[in-house]
Amino acid sequence: MRVSSATPLSANELDRIDAYWRAANYLSVGQIYLMDNPLLREPLCPEHVKPRLLGHWGTTPGLNFLYAHLNRIIAARRQEMIYITGPGHGGPGLVANTWLEGSYSDVYPSVSQDESGMRRLFKQFSFPGGVPSHVAAETPGSIHEGGELGYSLAHAYGAVLDNPELVAACVIGDGEAETGPLATAWHSNKFLDPAGDGAVLPILHLNGYKIANPTILARIDDDELDALLRGYGYEPYLVAGDDPAAVHQQLAATLDEVFDTIAAIQYGARTSGDTGRPRWPMIVFRTPKGWTGPKEVDGQPVEGTWRSHQVPLPAARDDAAHLRQLEAWMRSYRPEELFSPEGAPRREVVDWLPGGDLRMGANPHANGGRLTRDLELPDFTAYGVKVSAAGETVAEPTRVLGNWLRDVIKANAPYRNFRLIGPDETESNRLGAVFDVTDKVWRARIDDVDVHLGPSGRVMEILSENTCQGWLEGYLLTGRHGLFNCYEAFVHIVDSMVNQHAKWLKVSRELPWRMPVPSLTYLLTSHVWQQDHNGFSHQDPGFIDHVANKKADVIRVYLPPDANTLLSVADHCLRSRNHINVIVAGKKPAVTWLDVDAAALHCARGLGIWDWASNDQGDPDVVLAAAGDVPTREVLAATDLLRQHLPDLRVRVVNVVDLMRLQPPSEHPHGISDAQFDAIFTTDRPVIFAYHGYPTLIHRLTYRRHGHDNLHVRGYKEEGTTTTPFDMLVRNDSDRYHLVMDVIDRVPDLARRAATLRQQMVDKRVQHRQYICRTGEDLPEVRDWRWPAS
Amino acid sequence: MRVSSATPLSANELDRIDAYWRAANYLSVGQIYLMDNPLLREPLCPEHVKPRLLGHWGTTPGLNFLYAHLNRIIAARRQEMIYITGPGHGGPGLVANTWLEGSYSDVYPSVSQDESGMRRLFKQFSFPGGVPSHVAAETPGSIHEGGELGYSLAHAYGAVLDNPELVAACVIGDGEAETGPLATAWHSNKFLDPAGDGAVLPILHLNGYKIANPTILARIDDDELDALLRGYGYEPYLVAGDDPAAVHQQLAATLDEVFDTIAAIQYGARTSGDTGRPRWPMIVFRTPKGWTGPKEVDGQPVEGTWRSHQVPLPAARDDAAHLRQLEAWMRSYRPEELFSPEGAPRREVVDWLPGGDLRMGANPHANGGRLTRDLELPDFTAYGVKVSAAGETVAEPTRVLGNWLRDVIKANAPYRNFRLIGPDETESNRLGAVFDVTDKVWRARIDDVDVHLGPSGRVMEILSENTCQGWLEGYLLTGRHGLFNCYEAFVHIVDSMVNQHAKWLKVSRELPWRMPVPSLTYLLTSHVWQQDHNGFSHQDPGFIDHVANKKADVIRVYLPPDANTLLSVADHCLRSRNHINVIVAGKKPAVTWLDVDAAALHCARGLGIWDWASNDQGDPDVVLAAAGDVPTREVLAATDLLRQHLPDLRVRVVNVVDLMRLQPPSEHPHGISDAQFDAIFTTDRPVIFAYHGYPTLIHRLTYRRHGHDNLHVRGYKEEGTTTTPFDMLVRNDSDRYHLVMDVIDRVPDLARRAATLRQQMVDKRVQHRQYICRTGEDLPEVRDWRWPAS
Repeated sequence: MRVSSATPLSANELDRIDAYWRAANYLSVGQIYLMDNPLLREPLCPEHVKPRLLGHWGTTPGLNFLYAHLNRIIAARRQEMIYITGPGHGGPGLVANTWLEGSYSDVYPSVSQDESGMRRLFKQFSFPGGVPSHVAAETPGSIHEGGELGYSLAHAYGAVLDNPELVAACVIGDGEAETGPLATAWHSNKFLDPAGDGAVLPILHLNGYKIANPTILARIDDDELDALLRGYGYEPYLVAGDDPAAVHQQLAATLDEVFDTIAAIQYGARTSGDTGRPRWPMIVFRTPKGWTGPKEVDGQPVEGTWRSHQVPLPAARDDAAHLRQLEAWMRSYRPEELFSPEGAPRREVVDWLPGGDLRMGANPHANGGRLTRDLELPDFTAYGVKVSAAGETVAEPTRVLGNWLRDVIKANAPYRNFRLIGPDETESNRLGAVFDVTDKVWRARIDDVDVHLGPSGRVMEILSENTCQGWLEGYLLTGRHGLFNCYEAFVHIVDSMVNQHAKWLKVSRELPWRMPVPSLTYLLTSHVWQQDHNGFSHQDPGFIDHVANKKADVIRVYLPPDANTLLSVADHCLRSRNHINVIVAGKKPAVTWLDVDAAALHCARGLGIWDWASNDQGDPDVVLAAAGDVPTREVLAATDLLRQHLPDLRVRVVNVVDLMRLQPPSEHPHGISDAQFDAIFTTDRPVIFAYHGYPTLIHRLTYRRHGHDNLHVRGYKEEGTTTTPFDMLVRNDSDRYHLVMDVIDRVPDLARRAATLRQQMVDKRVQHRQYICRTGEDLPEVRDWRWPAS
Repeated sequence: MRVSSATPLSANELDRIDAYWRAANYLSVGQIYLMDNPLLREPLCPEHVKPRLLGHWGTTPGLNFLYAHLNRIIAARRQEMIYITGPGHGGPGLVANTWLEGSYSDVYPSVSQDESGMRRLFKQFSFPGGVPSHVAAETPGSIHEGGELGYSLAHAYGAVLDNPELVAACVIGDGEAETGPLATAWHSNKFLDPAGDGAVLPILHLNGYKIANPTILARIDDDELDALLRGYGYEPYLVAGDDPAAVHQQLAATLDEVFDTIAAIQYGARTSGDTGRPRWPMIVFRTPKGWTGPKEVDGQPVEGTWRSHQVPLPAARDDAAHLRQLEAWMRSYRPEELFSPEGAPRREVVDWLPGGDLRMGANPHANGGRLTRDLELPDFTAYGVKVSAAGETVAEPTRVLGNWLRDVIKANAPYRNFRLIGPDETESNRLGAVFDVTDKVWRARIDDVDVHLGPSGRVMEILSENTCQGWLEGYLLTGRHGLFNCYEAFVHIVDSMVNQHAKWLKVSRELPWRMPVPSLTYLLTSHVWQQDHNGFSHQDPGFIDHVANKKADVIRVYLPPDANTLLSVADHCLRSRNHINVIVAGKKPAVTWLDVDAAALHCARGLGIWDWASNDQGDPDVVLAAAGDVPTREVLAATDLLRQHLPDLRVRVVNVVDLMRLQPPSEHPHGISDAQFDAIFTTDRPVIFAYHGYPTLIHRLTYRRHGHDNLHVRGYKEEGTTTTPFDMLVRNDSDRYHLVMDVIDRVPDLARRAATLRQQMVDKRVQHRQYICRTGEDLPEVRDWRWPAS
């Protein structure tokens, strides 16, 4: 690892930057411990100390040190920069820094830069009615929570895409570095265009310990660590020590060198058109955990060990020795030199900081809605599949969508504000039309045989759902737009990431100063009913259940039944803000039921009776409902069978696109009223509901509805293997024949009258089984079935 | 990277190993394409070709090549070895190899080593009623699916722990290598004890392409790849080429060297007691994707590109040119030299293979139930908290459990068959008693300041839930026992892994030859109601919902209300087989309700009326039910309030430990009958149910029960921040005061009579809010509440 030996700071600069650091540390300790006496005007007494001490000291002095030095760079170079706090539990540090630079008080005026503001600053931290203990949506300048750990680096890369003037300084905790998502996110440098994108400066904060253990990267040899980081494609610089003055000089020198290198790389790429992959610099910052905190507590070493991870003096309120130690610790920062008697930061401590939007707490990229430009969206109806009669036209829904997405990319090319992201599946998901107008960005070696790869491009593919999600989150939170296309089963890999993003959005929506950001939209294709070829491991429709647990204000789920409804839904989602949209759609050739205008209307309603398929004359004997493309087809096929065999049975066909319409309006803003629900589903007729996923979700959404006891749901019940598409339905009792059986079993007085038909359905299922085991293909009558022309 | 230049194979050996490889390739191609004419006795015609061609050729020849050479090592050294197929979609390869060595026919006698068996072998692959296209539970010798990608290396390490004579040869696809879980699993070498554990041989199968893209690791310079692998702590060997004869020699030489190195490392550690971290060897195997397959198809290059990923001749049944090309391809392996006229492998092709249990398809470790030894479990009742009156004794449930786990570890130390695994949280989860008898294994540097770290130990901690889960899965599937302790919110990181494990168990249970393996048991603590200090990001109880979607035969969910019930549940789970057990339990001081005998009885029943807390005289006005430790306390506190203020209200208190008891027996084997359910919950009285997690789960489990319309569930509704424990309940309307309000609102005719009490409850909530915002602490009456002595 490189070590910079220059000493660029004058004595005066060194004093000032150290004073700033001490101020940030003082304010951090104050937040963790105090609810009063913020300036230590009087000796600390137990009443000044919070009764519950909640916070993380260990990482904080390092975060403060880095923040101080990055400010020096920003001020000197007028460099646009945001700060990604991987160790997000170091929340007090970020709050302290933004308070010192004034950006905190800008958004929270009551937390002013004076004694009363400082008192509030201290008390509110980790306190009921106050602010969380972690860097969170409430923290100005942040786009990253850091509670779960693992996503900082992917977020940083996402943020700088298409922001050529921006640098994301990304502090990575050495604990976080052990996670899988972080371990692979290093490779993001193979997807960064030094001409069109900004730069990420990864700073591995090697303070050595997690909660109760050392970290792996702190306990391998320097040579091994150096090899690892070079293997990831970086040029590592080492800044290490525990003497503040020496480390100040070393970090300042290193940052000078590193930012010169970044500038040189960018200048080169932007002037020469070089399309190679630069070796971007990164920093290993090895300083003690809990630096400047208590060296020992109760006879145990604390500074430089895991014991400083959270609150080093846990008994400060109850134990006089702890309290005295706390006071000595806080006074060691010499607060009288840092703050005026009125509690404001002294001029010389902060007058060298960057101002305005250059302050990292005020950088507009970190409040991305401020910068969002609406997408130019071509009129989707022009891309619709022609449908002169229902069920006549076959199309591959995602391929149709691909044509529209191609033109979305084209129309927004000048604004560089849209990315299509996915794990190696864009072509497989039949969105390949986009490659007519853009490439997949790829900065590793390109060979002659490759297609659609280029040094820049709107499509990003890496075989890591975590990295895809992290990139996209970073891109959206800085105000741009995107779409994540993914196999349905494997999107569970990002379950926990979507949890955290949903939580971020939930809190953001409650903060008036956070501007709405474009929604996170998933296109889940290659779904459970179209993974017959890959088998059981690829079959899981449970992501919908997962997101349905999140706040109703945030989540939306769409199951467009055909190509034209998919277009309409996608158009809607790309216009939306602050949501998580889940779209599940097929990629295989399938019937298009609605012309594009009818599709738009149906999607606007979200659910409705399909009159053209119903013969209920306003008074059905049974309601056949569907949500999902394959279930819709099976419901219509079952309806066709019922018409042929039981022509006087009044069947109502209902289709649900917007799944949350099923909930009561008290539970979800899209929910329809009970009156509407009753009008569609009736209160007393059997409803056979063919659903795309696990049946219990439909019960969960509708359990308070009047007709719920009459509702019978079919769906995936975790039966699968490599087989035929129709066999997947049969194995899960969701095929047309079984739906007909369900109708016969549930419509009063039908059982005897339709006994022959029921037996035929049973026989059909046996016949199907025998046929596929012989031929490997579905029955021709299944494959060739079409809705009858009227 | 090292390159071995020796040529250890004699001409005869080279011929034989190459013949074996050709046989495996022939059989692989046959499986993908043919349903008849397996020996090509007649020219191929369309009827011989399957109508749906489903499979993955690209990785298969490489997998076959490696399998062949590992067999040479096994035979020469009598080395116990299992084969982990990261690129699990190369299913035909593993089936082909196990058929050749005879282990396939051992478990599937109808797929015999003759022409009819070969016909069956071919037809069954990816065919309805046959076998999946991927390596799966159905494949002998496998403990790893490889459908989702990312977990091979962690599985391999898990398998060799405490199996000192075993080597897991782990083929890692270069696509898979991009995933987060794989990228961090390399660090597992810091947790391997060369004396007590076996060895993992990672083989990075660098064939260059994913579905539609090159792979990152194939497109960085060799120097960079070398640095990366050295940075991960390995000694990399390169085997590369496309000339089979040369690659045969190179791989044979490399494997000789590598297995010598492994033996030397192990010998050193086992004789000298060296506790250092060895630099384990690994192999980079760079050969063409789709090696020996069609060079070109329809004018496009195929061999050596991503176009050979799946089925290189997709129109073999319909296009005469494709069909001819297929036949030429298959005949290029010279099947007449490989198989007798009767269809058996020729003697000279297979007579050098290892036999019996040394065959990788028959290795008992890969059917771990064959080797499982029951745990010695100390009588848990001896560890119980003394309870002379309900609610009298306070204990930290997980700390109590820790004492028992300490003795579980001690009792089973001689058998080396139990591991406690978690991401840096064993101490934080208050299981620290285990460190009285064992260490956390740690093979990186140990410093003086460290505690409980050692070169070997029963506890494993890495800050990667993915790696933890992968290790444990590998350990369990090879027949040993373990427990995964984890923060509740972050276990979502392994959602998709638990999906895949559940699918594996579901299929395994249907295979008579797969012996039951110990269950995967989660201890989720630091749960949603005890993460008030870490805040919103740490609050998510949805893992229960997630597992509840899996097959009922496999999943179990337990919510022990106190320390003694936790002991009973843990004892039960560690005895179970083939399940996924989720235990949610608190770590903070809490009241113990039942003495240990009553606890055991309550857990055996799974749910029941707590008579000691009820005054319903068999005919309640209201049922107050709880599942979860904190909800149980709130229900009892609410009951106490009701007793004080409405002494004539007949309240029944019900507690649920085994959540799946709530389902009908048709849905889950633990489900109680409707009659039992009705007897406990009544059919017509209001039931106020305080639940640990998202309320909808309770509705989902009970929607078919008679009394469902009277059921009102409180639980977590995604409202959280850093606050006090009780405030978390108030924010989610799950506190005792709100439960009392719910009772008043729902018991007929109570509203007017209890109007004053209701208003008091509203006031209490306001008072709580004011109090915590002032003091930071919960109301004393909340903190100090105890169930009244009778």
